Amino acid sequence: MTVLVAAQHDQTDRALPSLQARLACRAGMATTTAGVASGYVQGNLAILPEKFAGAFHRFCQLNPKPCPIIGMSDVGNPHIPALGADLDIRTDVPRYRVWVDGEVVEEPTDVIKHWRDDLVAFVLGCSFSFEEALLEEGLPIRHIERKVRVPMYRTNIACSPSGPFAGPMVVSMRPFTPKDAIRAVQITSRFPAVHGAPVHLALPHLIGIEDIARPDYGDPVPIEADEIPVFWACGVTPQAVIAAAKIPFAITHAPGLMLVTDLKNKQLAVL
Amino acid sequence: MTVLVAAQHDQTDRALPSLQARLACRAGMATTTAGVASGYVQGNLAILPEKFAGAFHRFCQLNPKPCPIIGMSDVGNPHIPALGADLDIRTDVPRYRVWVDGEVVEEPTDVIKHWRDDLVAFVLGCSFSFEEALLEEGLPIRHIERKVRVPMYRTNIACSPSGPFAGPMVVSMRPFTPKDAIRAVQITSRFPAVHGAPVHLALPHLIGIEDIARPDYGDPVPIEADEIPVFWACGVTPQAVIAAAKIPFAITHAPGLMLVTDLKNKQLAVL
Repeated sequence: MTVLVAAQHDQTDRALPSLQARLACRAGMATTTAGVASGYVQGNLAILPEKFAGAFHRFCQLNPKPCPIIGMSDVGNPHIPALGADLDIRTDVPRYRVWVDGEVVEEPTDVIKHWRDDLVAFVLGCSFSFEEALLEEGLPIRHIERKVRVPMYRTNIACSPSGPFAGPMVVSMRPFTPKDAIRAVQITSRFPAVHGAPVHLALPHLIGIEDIARPDYGDPVPIEADEIPVFWACGVTPQAVIAAAKIPFAITHAPGLMLVTDLKNKQLAVL
Repeated sequence: MTVLVAAQHDQTDRALPSLQARLACRAGMATTTAGVASGYVQGNLAILPEKFAGAFHRFCQLNPKPCPIIGMSDVGNPHIPALGADLDIRTDVPRYRVWVDGEVVEEPTDVIKHWRDDLVAFVLGCSFSFEEALLEEGLPIRHIERKVRVPMYRTNIACSPSGPFAGPMVVSMRPFTPKDAIRAVQITSRFPAVHGAPVHLALPHLIGIEDIARPDYGDPVPIEADEIPVFWACGVTPQAVIAAAKIPFAITHAPGLMLVTDLKNKQLAVL
């Protein structure tokens, strides 16, 4: 094992930034991946026993805007070569959440000791990818400017249920001027694999948001008088749904500490 | 001439719906072209003396959202083969407006007697094309449902001036739910030749609209509590600009009575 790690370190200098990030995670890095390996796709993680994986897979299929699948493992196999040749889902996320009966029981930096032959890993697209596209076109993103987490809200938009998995869509919010909101719709429409176009804009009460200044997750950000709130389906949705399902066992990433893949964000553009 | 008209009538049964519409105009039809020759591109018309055509052409180039050029004639030539093999710009619009020094002096059904060797005709894209695309995707269009004219507003968005041509952008407004507004941005983004994506949505006062219930042109339509107004650049803009320029002579179409071309709306989709 020591030899293998040394070999990986030897190749680090020439390795992709994404592989370097994963190697750092294996070595114990446990901080946010925001801004890490710029240009590479990061993913939300959900690991479930095979017994529940079919129903969860259908849930994602039925709700592609909050749960866009960008990769998944074979049963019991911790590798997902399509997302990275060497990728090991047990070690390559900075920090995990281990769920038992709907409660977080541990937040380890690897899940080697939790791995089982019946686990299936799902990697779901994340807003970091479309935020990069928005920033590249010069659109300001309030929570990034303010160095806080994106504000997120539970809505009254019901996800289509599948087996034990059901619940409301969680959305993230970014304020824009109307002109920039229109541009943001165009830009993010190109990226259906990472939540795609907004699901709502303006009029937050219509989707059950009573107080925009009090997000259910993340941090509040101000909306200026010449701006409207723009809402995207959020990868927190599957995590909330897994928690609510109270299944006996599951593993997710810790919010903001994502899986860094070898896919490039630009590869996800459909046009 | 009688023989020619007879020949045209003989071929009408097999002619394109667009050609049939133009033949009807030549025969004196002077009613709105809304709903005529479904699927075919209709255009706004602006005819100016060569002396002003260069500045107007630059105005359109500088302001492509309100003034998307889909065809233009050579100097003194009333034909625009790219828009229809037989098209005669002097007879094929149901009703014209003849402008002298910024005032409408006549609204004839043909401009044969007004035609001059120095005139240049511009045909500009029209919202009928993108409305067809919206309707085909099941989006309801309020003013069509209510059988009234689309509401239009002068804004505080200044067009880029060129020579004598300057003034504010005029926009048309259609109310949509936020979800449909997002879809409408996607659909109309595919059609830059017919005004393209909206220029604004929600918050009308930001573009200088003080009372949405009192449009500057067209008819008011209600905006329901779960809807936002969505604004597109409007082909009335060039007509307003030509009027304001008070040039000695110009010809336009009468509002709503457009030139029907042989282009198909679907041909204008950029993706």
